[in-house]
Amino acid sequence: MALPATTTRRRTLAVGLIGPGRVGSALLDQLRATQPRLARAGLELKLCGVAASKRMWLDSDDPALNGRSDSAQTWRPSDLNEFVDHVRGIDGRHALLIDCSANDTVASRYAGWLAAGVHVVTPNKLAGSGPLTRWQAIRAACASGMRFRYEATVCAGLPVVQTLRDLLDTGDELLSVEGMFSGTLAWLCNRHDGSQPFSALVREAHTLGYTEPDPRDDLSGMDVARKLVILAREAGWPLSLENVEVQSLVPAELAALPVDEFMLRLDQLDASMAARLADARAQGGVLRHHAHLDAHGRASVKLAVLPTGHPFAHTRLTDNVVQFTTRRYRDNPLLVQGPGAGPEVTAAGIFADVLRIAEGLEVRA
Amino acid sequence: MALPATTTRRRTLAVGLIGPGRVGSALLDQLRATQPRLARAGLELKLCGVAASKRMWLDSDDPALNGRSDSAQTWRPSDLNEFVDHVRGIDGRHALLIDCSANDTVASRYAGWLAAGVHVVTPNKLAGSGPLTRWQAIRAACASGMRFRYEATVCAGLPVVQTLRDLLDTGDELLSVEGMFSGTLAWLCNRHDGSQPFSALVREAHTLGYTEPDPRDDLSGMDVARKLVILAREAGWPLSLENVEVQSLVPAELAALPVDEFMLRLDQLDASMAARLADARAQGGVLRHHAHLDAHGRASVKLAVLPTGHPFAHTRLTDNVVQFTTRRYRDNPLLVQGPGAGPEVTAAGIFADVLRIAEGLEVRA
Repeated sequence: MALPATTTRRRTLAVGLIGPGRVGSALLDQLRATQPRLARAGLELKLCGVAASKRMWLDSDDPALNGRSDSAQTWRPSDLNEFVDHVRGIDGRHALLIDCSANDTVASRYAGWLAAGVHVVTPNKLAGSGPLTRWQAIRAACASGMRFRYEATVCAGLPVVQTLRDLLDTGDELLSVEGMFSGTLAWLCNRHDGSQPFSALVREAHTLGYTEPDPRDDLSGMDVARKLVILAREAGWPLSLENVEVQSLVPAELAALPVDEFMLRLDQLDASMAARLADARAQGGVLRHHAHLDAHGRASVKLAVLPTGHPFAHTRLTDNVVQFTTRRYRDNPLLVQGPGAGPEVTAAGIFADVLRIAEGLEVRA
Repeated sequence: MALPATTTRRRTLAVGLIGPGRVGSALLDQLRATQPRLARAGLELKLCGVAASKRMWLDSDDPALNGRSDSAQTWRPSDLNEFVDHVRGIDGRHALLIDCSANDTVASRYAGWLAAGVHVVTPNKLAGSGPLTRWQAIRAACASGMRFRYEATVCAGLPVVQTLRDLLDTGDELLSVEGMFSGTLAWLCNRHDGSQPFSALVREAHTLGYTEPDPRDDLSGMDVARKLVILAREAGWPLSLENVEVQSLVPAELAALPVDEFMLRLDQLDASMAARLADARAQGGVLRHHAHLDAHGRASVKLAVLPTGHPFAHTRLTDNVVQFTTRRYRDNPLLVQGPGAGPEVTAAGIFADVLRIAEGLEVRA
């Protein structure tokens, strides 16, 4: 059922956004567009500040809010301490920080913010897949009832982390996770049919903007490995990035080159990729970029030959897909599939986390 | 992140279960098994009563709870008014009724219970797909902040209703829903390859317990139509069952027979099903039992010929699958797939709803 239209239970959540880039801006658009509906449901998400790396805006500076005639918003130099203090406010209101930066220093602040009574939501994978001690400190800081949510770190807006959480919280037991967590690598594997060299496909994906500016950020598999670490930790398994077996598609001799030079030498990937494809075909299977995690905590990210009957053999070009095998879903796993990247769907994943926190707020005067 | 371990925010939710059948019993097992973990997270789900159709148990009757030496639980004749009053209690505690009956009279009570301050969770499709006025009364009764949740009405424990809710609440717009919502019909269509008549497959499914005791309850498509109505209403479209175009696989002349006689005349289905299969093959496609809903509120449940590249062409034997096409997920829809029936996964869907309500509880003394 929709957010209930309620007049008896009004809740206000002060929100501060860190990192107004493409995802952050899409989120601000979504918050604005849904404001009337949320208000009818008794929920006010009150944007109190936006912090970019160099400048920040606080609603107290807004001339319109202060009755001044000058309607231009005022920006001041960024100061994250001042920003967070402002969002928390002095009246014990509910407060939430949304970190859309990709900044490790910001991720290092989460535990402190949670301990200080501020909820945190992020699409940033650095906390969930970074140092285990930092992750454990963040979990510990939630003991006072604060919430840390990060659905959008894995497959953007697809319901992945929450689905795993619900399985575990209702007493199910995770046996394994299989996934294709990179739309770019899914596209490359789907298109890699032998009609053109792999390097030509990488160039095409690069031109289309499907890859990161440096395609090695996709081809290395490290971004996929981070997602696997996040899901493992969600299941209570203390996995770290360095324990994931990651097979990079980038030959070692190309790993450290400047990006322009790497792009010129892309055809050095072709022979080995052609051999992998021929091998897959000889086995009667398809070649896919495959992430796997088992209940012994073993995790791998690599090219794998999957049988043509495998559900991952028939995904749409750039789709992400994740499959949970659990005690209850042992014979037929639970599968979620769809686009796993893009500002709008990523913002929606963040927004759903915000709503989940808002649902749990106590009414404060 | 897991339910936070919190000592500062303890919540108690009084729970009454109506209908301790296979699903209800599985749920009681799950509640018992997870109790220690929930307690660590500061949540007590306190089972206050179980009501079957003829008898009910109230925790006040439990000799163990009353310090009496007789450890046998006491059952008394069922009285739903007394039952609900008991679960609500007199101290203004948070209370929740879980309806695992398949009883329309019970569904007619939801609005009254919600208005009286009791949350309701159910896997029972009758409220969500029954008379529109009753449905609207239930929604209206949630205005005071009570929650009515029914994830398990569509595809059991798969995250379907919540996923649609999140899309809409974050401002997305539903364009269409496609689904295969019957594991039985999915199995029949997957197995129907021409090597044996359709009737033989129905008999096999009946023997294996894949069908309802009367297979016409599956073959009629009405159960699938109910799920489509529930999703349409979730999207705010006032669809009723009588407006769904439902193509029954049961010929009209067999619809009213006693079930034994129907089973004897099953082969009357074969010629038309063989023709449908031949037609699908002539088109180069596969035959699937397909539910469809579009943004104009048009809804249909019928056999459809899908191209072999369609994701529904490659599902596992008895899997359910749902695909949401929205403004944000327009080119590549969002897809959820897996087993959509069975006591354990259905109970887990109910349990997830209970946890979602519990997360939103205010602490009361």
